[in-house]
Amino acid sequence: MNDTLYQITIENDQQAMALALIQAGFGILNTTPNPRVGCVIVKDSRIIGAGFTQPPGGNHAEIQALQDAHARGQDVRGATVYVTLEPCSHFGRTPPCADALIKAGVGRVVAAIADPNPLVAGQGMARLQAAGIATASGVLKDEAEEMNIGFLTRMRRGTPWVRMKSAASLDGKTALHNGKSQWITSQEARDDGHIWRARACAILTGIGTVRDDDPQLNVRAIETPRQPRRIVVDSKLALAPAARIVQGGGTWVFTASDDAARTRALTDAGVEVILLPNADGKVDLPAVMRELGKRQINELHVEAGSKLNASLIREGCVDELLLYLAPSLIGDARAMFDLPPLDDLAGKIDLRFYEVKQIGADLRILARF
Amino acid sequence: MNDTLYQITIENDQQAMALALIQAGFGILNTTPNPRVGCVIVKDSRIIGAGFTQPPGGNHAEIQALQDAHARGQDVRGATVYVTLEPCSHFGRTPPCADALIKAGVGRVVAAIADPNPLVAGQGMARLQAAGIATASGVLKDEAEEMNIGFLTRMRRGTPWVRMKSAASLDGKTALHNGKSQWITSQEARDDGHIWRARACAILTGIGTVRDDDPQLNVRAIETPRQPRRIVVDSKLALAPAARIVQGGGTWVFTASDDAARTRALTDAGVEVILLPNADGKVDLPAVMRELGKRQINELHVEAGSKLNASLIREGCVDELLLYLAPSLIGDARAMFDLPPLDDLAGKIDLRFYEVKQIGADLRILARF
Repeated sequence: MNDTLYQITIENDQQAMALALIQAGFGILNTTPNPRVGCVIVKDSRIIGAGFTQPPGGNHAEIQALQDAHARGQDVRGATVYVTLEPCSHFGRTPPCADALIKAGVGRVVAAIADPNPLVAGQGMARLQAAGIATASGVLKDEAEEMNIGFLTRMRRGTPWVRMKSAASLDGKTALHNGKSQWITSQEARDDGHIWRARACAILTGIGTVRDDDPQLNVRAIETPRQPRRIVVDSKLALAPAARIVQGGGTWVFTASDDAARTRALTDAGVEVILLPNADGKVDLPAVMRELGKRQINELHVEAGSKLNASLIREGCVDELLLYLAPSLIGDARAMFDLPPLDDLAGKIDLRFYEVKQIGADLRILARF
Repeated sequence: MNDTLYQITIENDQQAMALALIQAGFGILNTTPNPRVGCVIVKDSRIIGAGFTQPPGGNHAEIQALQDAHARGQDVRGATVYVTLEPCSHFGRTPPCADALIKAGVGRVVAAIADPNPLVAGQGMARLQAAGIATASGVLKDEAEEMNIGFLTRMRRGTPWVRMKSAASLDGKTALHNGKSQWITSQEARDDGHIWRARACAILTGIGTVRDDDPQLNVRAIETPRQPRRIVVDSKLALAPAARIVQGGGTWVFTASDDAARTRALTDAGVEVILLPNADGKVDLPAVMRELGKRQINELHVEAGSKLNASLIREGCVDELLLYLAPSLIGDARAMFDLPPLDDLAGKIDLRFYEVKQIGADLRILARF
């Protein structure tokens, strides 16, 4: 913890919550399946304690902040607690944070957003109020929503936030017809892509990409305390047990094939095979998303080929495009999405630009459906 | 002229030159073929005169600023003159500005850049120095270069600055296979496109676009004191004299066909037909650019179809892409540029992003070759 934090003069709720959000960000790589939460405790315009949610089983942000204040010899009684998500009110892996705050005697609790987790859902704040603690919420709400876009989406919708990554030339091409795609974008953009992989709970690809590129699909360009789970959509169960995506364990394969021998071979290699066929004999992609929700996947990072990309888009399974655009023209080549021709522009799929940033020589575009 | 200008306290050369550049911008739509130049005259930390270059035959910026100071009862003797381009030293449509500045008794002249016009090329500054006037140059050089990117390119290279406009979906498609393209981008983006048309000396398109869309290719979305000249690349001289692009007069057609009857029909309709064939019986595009340079076209705005776009790019005739990207996916449809497939990514055409801005719901990307 950088001591500078404790020397800042806190002027208002927004400023304190912004600092709590920075704390939350420290957990971005490893709180999954829990939300990334940050907390600062303010007394006499100074931060006297700060913390963020630890990996599952570890402390939540509020407990970390209370312990931090205690370790610093600070008295939290009457202090204001800023937390980026409503304190929990239930016994999960850890006891309820609301109770800990009440016991500590804090004077006021400000939350950025309510926790849509049905086990909390306002009861955290209600419990604090019942104990005579002043509460407020909604401070830096939008920023707090973004921090836990995956967790919140899963709680509200039952499925992960699905972010589809693609890299293309300015004329929208991801590879030559002969398959060559190394490299269209810059080293900086490719490294940046690993930051997004790292924050995801899981990375999903298709069997076509596995067969063509045999990717590891893990995080290498940055250090991470946790590798995302890897998932393959593989209708015919063609995945080779020796594929690199199987190495290291934990890989899930969604298939439409009940071939016992292939299933056995993959299971023996440490893969979990999940049978989810649709009526067309393909993998039922919306059902995959529901299953991933049940399995507590908050943010799903998709790096697939143009066919699976297009299927996911057409079946309404994608929330966001993470698109790296290189300043180059490639001409007649492979498209990002293998979407069919339209007769009318009314049939186009609409998004909105959420963020655009230059990364190295390239543009990084976040666009949401 | 807004009187606020004369109340600003001038702190340094950069600040004064920035104000001179704003003046230059007032002429952006109608100084062609002359450069857009702005001038402010500073004395005792106040602007005492300001002006910008008038349409051809009218005053240059320096004369406008001197006259403005005179009209305000200000004494310019000993003042510092900030001008965005080196004062001219030759008799053109107007007498040399350097002489006027000397005669006025100014004390110092600061220019953003030298004028590469071979009729000036440092002689303006030299003449001032010879008269005992202090000079400086290079202040806000890059900004001043951008202001006259077309004029400067023409002076240095003999050809216009060529800006190719395209509008596409996020997956790089400009129209459906059935030709429908109304509308992929937003009203705001389409209106913004007219601002770029308006500043250009001429707008160039191909016969395919004329045949498919019969565009007027003029400026309608904004008010302008001058319509750009319209140019059609039409190898076989297939342009109909009744086409909308011919109406209003002044249209130039570059062709590879010496068909006398068609030439006559177009000439009778007010079109100038220019024969510039290459060895393949197509229009010689690099020769077109040289001809347009001779004809004093500074900025050329291209709005063409994927075939002519690709030919211009492949023949090295394009300096800049002005690309509006809509947040939508269209799928299998027409590409921006009909470039052939590559065997190796080393063959890709590289650009660099110069500017990215959100316009309405769309992105406007300027990328330079």
